Amino acid sequence: MRDFTFYNPTRIEFGKEKENNIGNYITDYGLKKVLIVYGSERIKRDGLLGRVTASLEKNNIQWVAIGGVVSNPLLSKVHEAIFLAKTENVDAVLAVGGGSVLDSAKAIAAGALYDGDVWDFFIFKARAEAALPIFSIMTLAATGSEMNAGGVVMNDETKEKLAIMTPVLYPKVSVINPDLMATVGKDYLAYSAADIFAHCLDLYFTATYIPEFNLSLIENILRTVMTTTDRLLADPNDYDARAEFAWASTIALNGNTFNGVKGNSFDTHMIEHSLSALFNVPHGAGLSAIFPAWMRWHNNQQPERYERFARNVFGTEGIENGIQKLEEWYTKIGTPINLTEANVPKTAIRDLAENAYVLATMWGLTEKYPVDTIAEILEMA
Amino acid sequence: MRDFTFYNPTRIEFGKEKENNIGNYITDYGLKKVLIVYGSERIKRDGLLGRVTASLEKNNIQWVAIGGVVSNPLLSKVHEAIFLAKTENVDAVLAVGGGSVLDSAKAIAAGALYDGDVWDFFIFKARAEAALPIFSIMTLAATGSEMNAGGVVMNDETKEKLAIMTPVLYPKVSVINPDLMATVGKDYLAYSAADIFAHCLDLYFTATYIPEFNLSLIENILRTVMTTTDRLLADPNDYDARAEFAWASTIALNGNTFNGVKGNSFDTHMIEHSLSALFNVPHGAGLSAIFPAWMRWHNNQQPERYERFARNVFGTEGIENGIQKLEEWYTKIGTPINLTEANVPKTAIRDLAENAYVLATMWGLTEKYPVDTIAEILEMA
Repeated sequence: MRDFTFYNPTRIEFGKEKENNIGNYITDYGLKKVLIVYGSERIKRDGLLGRVTASLEKNNIQWVAIGGVVSNPLLSKVHEAIFLAKTENVDAVLAVGGGSVLDSAKAIAAGALYDGDVWDFFIFKARAEAALPIFSIMTLAATGSEMNAGGVVMNDETKEKLAIMTPVLYPKVSVINPDLMATVGKDYLAYSAADIFAHCLDLYFTATYIPEFNLSLIENILRTVMTTTDRLLADPNDYDARAEFAWASTIALNGNTFNGVKGNSFDTHMIEHSLSALFNVPHGAGLSAIFPAWMRWHNNQQPERYERFARNVFGTEGIENGIQKLEEWYTKIGTPINLTEANVPKTAIRDLAENAYVLATMWGLTEKYPVDTIAEILEMA
Repeated sequence: MRDFTFYNPTRIEFGKEKENNIGNYITDYGLKKVLIVYGSERIKRDGLLGRVTASLEKNNIQWVAIGGVVSNPLLSKVHEAIFLAKTENVDAVLAVGGGSVLDSAKAIAAGALYDGDVWDFFIFKARAEAALPIFSIMTLAATGSEMNAGGVVMNDETKEKLAIMTPVLYPKVSVINPDLMATVGKDYLAYSAADIFAHCLDLYFTATYIPEFNLSLIENILRTVMTTTDRLLADPNDYDARAEFAWASTIALNGNTFNGVKGNSFDTHMIEHSLSALFNVPHGAGLSAIFPAWMRWHNNQQPERYERFARNVFGTEGIENGIQKLEEWYTKIGTPINLTEANVPKTAIRDLAENAYVLATMWGLTEKYPVDTIAEILEMA
């Protein structure tokens, strides 16, 4: 095992109706005024926002709200919310929504205590040393953002989709109530599954060293996601399946799979960000669209790991069989397995490769991924 | 899945020579004077204490030290250390040793901020609402105490071995350097393995509800412990094996295996505490001595789980075959599989059962474990 630091102070409140206690959780930290960040207006119609604000008011917590966060969340909205947070002098940020909403809330929380442009943190011009305390109520499981210190935002001017990660961005408390996720459509369930798969498999395949324990843990997460996705497509009201799916999503990116690992990188995430940025492809759909191609390009670098994946996740033998089984499963759940299915024209490959290369530069992956290599992988997709 | 709260703010610093930074870690929390708690004087001879105090002094942290903590740690030593902590006005406690040392340090940290007798916390007469910040440098992997909020201490007057658990007892930072564990003898390695097994299997077998993910996670921990114990018995200097063993030990009791579970209890731990208390049997040895008997008594309550254990952990079929494989493995690594091998006379069974029944009362297990039932299980051992 390689040396590591593990630190994850986020408190998870998991289960039915937990969002109705959000005021108590925030009071535990002595906070008095929160900015609620959310996406669509649906949370007003279905009563979620009302229950949240009722809990806040019962605890004498003031609040202001800003909605309209979209998937592949935009920097312009983050700027707008930071202005509101500063003007209203809030002392906490509460995300009510999915990963995009929480990622925006993290940027807002950091930006609210910073005099410059919050984008500085994304381009490593500055480092976020402080942030308002962050709370979340999740309505979609996928990104793992509820229990990690990272966030991704897209600059709508430059079309760069970039990430921040720093310990001050760990949410204080995240509420995961599987019932709040029951209205997610089959398409977004599939995209979520593909996103969780990519969080696991980027690590599983790229690590130059990874303990046996971590490989088995990842396979456990993958099997959980597959089994529960299948169950949810058959019966969206299967609470246990929804709950196990949600928790697998959290575990996939809360640090446990990374302990003691060396040399891993988020290769498909790096490439995918360009699809989201230039064609607004849902993140999970973009990942499944490039994953099989990337695996066919990459497998000779870790052949034993690909053999093992085929065997332990799909019960088959051989690298190509494992990749095909993954394609079949993606197709079955309804997420694209190539660019065409993701409605991305092949003519855009050069632009996509150049966009992804910006991330390759920031993540120190240019040696492995020159623009031509990224283009080659996209051609294969 | 059942509702749960997960919260584990302990920072783990895992890897080579990490103990040499302990002064920096403590400085991160702005602390100025620590009480070092340790066991045998070996840590002076082998230079560990010197390196620790050098790091403290480099960071201008004052220190006092108290040694002599034994396995099955004694309340009298805890009282002595609390007196020292109060007199010397320390603002943190640093455990350097194994689980017993850290468990004592937790009791000391809570007792130092309490006017009454710290034993009040163990008999639920009072609840520890505050504690001095706790740090640890582990020299033995087994109890998981380095990343949880619990601790066990024995009252040397009443011979009761009882536990406290409350969030203020999470260590701030725990150092796990596998190299510090390389001098552990083969006997204590085996006892540690048996202890980790019991932490996993009490949960695995007793839970009335447990998600598939948790069962697989536990099997993963068990396989890791088995593989790495075998490797360490062959080569005590196998760093990766030592590291994976240590981390499996931490994961086994840091909360992850318990999320979403219902109806679990620490049945063999409850019974074993009497062996430690009355005959000073090493905790792990006591556990392996009663585990096969307990499994034979208990398996009809969760037969599918026992079938699964046999298959997924030992690659065999059938409940009794699984239990026998476990006995064979215990015997191979050198930890007892019955009372005779643990040097506990059968004539003591009544006393042991009555001692264990005290814990059954405190843990709400008297319905499942009347004194006669405990005696029956001990007879089978």
